[in-house]
Amino acid sequence: MQRLSTSDADFERKFARLVDERRESEADIAHTVSDILAAVRQRGDAALTEFTQRFDHHQLGKEDDWRISAESCAAAFDALDTELREALELAASRIRAYHAEQLPADRDYTDETGVRLGAKWRPVDAAGLYVPGGRAAYPSSLLMNAIPAKVAGVERLVVTTPTPRGETNPLVLAAAHLAGVDELWRVGGAQAVAALAYGTERISRVDVITGPGNDYVAEAKRQLFGVVGIDMVAGPSEILVIADNKNDPDWIAADLLSQAEHDPSSQSILITDDATFASEVEDAVDVQCSQLSTEKSARASWDAHGVLLVVKDLSEAPALANRLAAEHVELAVDDPEALFAQLRHAGSVFLGRHTPEAVGDYVAGPNHVLPTGRRARFASGLSVLDFMKRTSFISLDKDSLSRIGPAAIALARVEGLPAHANSVEFRLK
Amino acid sequence: MQRLSTSDADFERKFARLVDERRESEADIAHTVSDILAAVRQRGDAALTEFTQRFDHHQLGKEDDWRISAESCAAAFDALDTELREALELAASRIRAYHAEQLPADRDYTDETGVRLGAKWRPVDAAGLYVPGGRAAYPSSLLMNAIPAKVAGVERLVVTTPTPRGETNPLVLAAAHLAGVDELWRVGGAQAVAALAYGTERISRVDVITGPGNDYVAEAKRQLFGVVGIDMVAGPSEILVIADNKNDPDWIAADLLSQAEHDPSSQSILITDDATFASEVEDAVDVQCSQLSTEKSARASWDAHGVLLVVKDLSEAPALANRLAAEHVELAVDDPEALFAQLRHAGSVFLGRHTPEAVGDYVAGPNHVLPTGRRARFASGLSVLDFMKRTSFISLDKDSLSRIGPAAIALARVEGLPAHANSVEFRLK
Repeated sequence: MQRLSTSDADFERKFARLVDERRESEADIAHTVSDILAAVRQRGDAALTEFTQRFDHHQLGKEDDWRISAESCAAAFDALDTELREALELAASRIRAYHAEQLPADRDYTDETGVRLGAKWRPVDAAGLYVPGGRAAYPSSLLMNAIPAKVAGVERLVVTTPTPRGETNPLVLAAAHLAGVDELWRVGGAQAVAALAYGTERISRVDVITGPGNDYVAEAKRQLFGVVGIDMVAGPSEILVIADNKNDPDWIAADLLSQAEHDPSSQSILITDDATFASEVEDAVDVQCSQLSTEKSARASWDAHGVLLVVKDLSEAPALANRLAAEHVELAVDDPEALFAQLRHAGSVFLGRHTPEAVGDYVAGPNHVLPTGRRARFASGLSVLDFMKRTSFISLDKDSLSRIGPAAIALARVEGLPAHANSVEFRLK
Repeated sequence: MQRLSTSDADFERKFARLVDERRESEADIAHTVSDILAAVRQRGDAALTEFTQRFDHHQLGKEDDWRISAESCAAAFDALDTELREALELAASRIRAYHAEQLPADRDYTDETGVRLGAKWRPVDAAGLYVPGGRAAYPSSLLMNAIPAKVAGVERLVVTTPTPRGETNPLVLAAAHLAGVDELWRVGGAQAVAALAYGTERISRVDVITGPGNDYVAEAKRQLFGVVGIDMVAGPSEILVIADNKNDPDWIAADLLSQAEHDPSSQSILITDDATFASEVEDAVDVQCSQLSTEKSARASWDAHGVLLVVKDLSEAPALANRLAAEHVELAVDDPEALFAQLRHAGSVFLGRHTPEAVGDYVAGPNHVLPTGRRARFASGLSVLDFMKRTSFISLDKDSLSRIGPAAIALARVEGLPAHANSVEFRLK
């Protein structure tokens, strides 16, 4: 953990280093991944079988080895205890309601020259969701990826997930049932992403691939950008808490730890205007940390990447926050609106003292798949738009063509494209 | 050129080959490009100077060698003849009007549980546009990339363009003036894309990079996806014309050639229900082609990739069109609406007999940067959204947290994330 203060003589140098720091692995796995993609593209299911045996120690033989049935998912859902089932149902219905509001409107209008113009939005035919196996297999993550696709109107929703030594995660199956997943394949890694993008004998290709994964999955998605639609390159997660000294240090410490416990490469940053409060939070982090089952990860993250940043006045915070462009930003102050108005770059903002980031992870409704690693400068959280595309349209008649056609002819000529000019000119004769 | 008919015994096999055919180079330039990107990242302007000398034979020495001034752009605009200036102004104002309608609305509402939710859209701080040099330097392309960025509210709009042996294109400078470009740098190729993404001593980095380019530029953008925002991988252009026999074959031939003349790898496809009409169009293509200054490119494209596809009935066309997912689709029939309603995948649609695709290239208003190579299955044309990003927000008070917080606690527990649970639980005590 490092302490910074805007009063430090070398603050700008240290802060710039913080902004530019990359917590992402830059391991050179591009070759390994491109070999896996090429193998699946060329040899389909045979390559999937080999990689799954090698990496997941799972034998893809008969149908049940390949797919998890809808019946198994329904059974997993029915087996949930009541509290958990209701929690998942509340999450699903709130996520559905928030994303339904995102559905874009079509446009169709005729302008003053008589030209009819517009745009129609339509869902992609098929979407593939990658769901990690093992520790990072979160039912909430399945809901956050699958529900926007279904709200967008995607007809075929395919999940791939590794099942190491054949093991499945009943919570993920239950969430797949609740979200209406259409196919669930027991493959993982870069090979699963390749199967979704290129298709194999058994797995038909999809149009868009979303969902978190390890470095190999992320690199496979990056390499397949353009072959299919890809949501975003995801990196380690981060939280920035902007808090005054009227907060309970325990609340703020829990918020910082809720990010840190995800992964040793996660980052938690507190900006406050009170050095004493910063120390109280530091102490609370230490006490709470030792009581967590996730202590190892939380402590590693906090030690390596945690930051306590003391400003002279909270009015300094938005400019710093904009440079950090954090995935999650909490504004734990009396008037969060004033700070929020000055935030230009953030994945998701949590307003006020009673909005811990964790409610956004599960049940608030907005998506928890958000831009990381300063990408909120240019990227947005997952939405129904990631599963839709827009077709523009134009309609002219002879009159409107006579009004705007001559300008098209002039521009086509000067660009040296005579057939373009002809196509307008012939119609105006 | 190949003729196909849905009556052919082996039609499905031939059509599937057409759909799967890739007209894109798969030359292995990934290494060359990644070396260029690494050099610019590490050595900045010195690397730019070396590559620009080597590839463009242009010496980047004093300030004027690096940048084209705003005064030069204004002078180029003032020197345009009246017809051309008015054509560019009409194009710019119509593009501006269409894209202004795309600006997304923010959301801010409180739901039935008292949870306040919403989303704010904001522009990126800086956008970079790549503008090719030489033959493909189109002023229309500069307008189509720059105007949506300015409409989105981007404050810093940077253009990079190669100036081989120092030569500049006055039309591109004039368009840059008209569109309000803020900086214009005389660098091109993968090195220009690297400069935009990483920044150098002279060129500050941007957040989003758009614009067409050669294979090296496209590969550089692909490799930098995630470091910055990227519009879309662009490939060779295509047009699909669906036409009955009541059209003038000359009109349709000109439309097919307006695509073919762009590049030998372009593709023009006609679907019609009348084999005789197809032959008339074929003849007209042949006659018109020999009169074009772009004959070489047009003939090469038509010979290698042109298709005349005869269907028994035009009702067969939408299903075929959806598999082709073409960049441009013309519906040259009496009732285009009926066919349009069945089109699921297309970049842009041109309705009726008096809407040649070329009006969309220049003056109609919608963007001419559209998904190619079957990518309309999942991608959209360039829009203001490519230069904006969305921040979601959540606000709870103690009451609303008490309503939805317990479900978050239950889910956090089952996912093994105790600090997540604590952050909610502490606030509910």
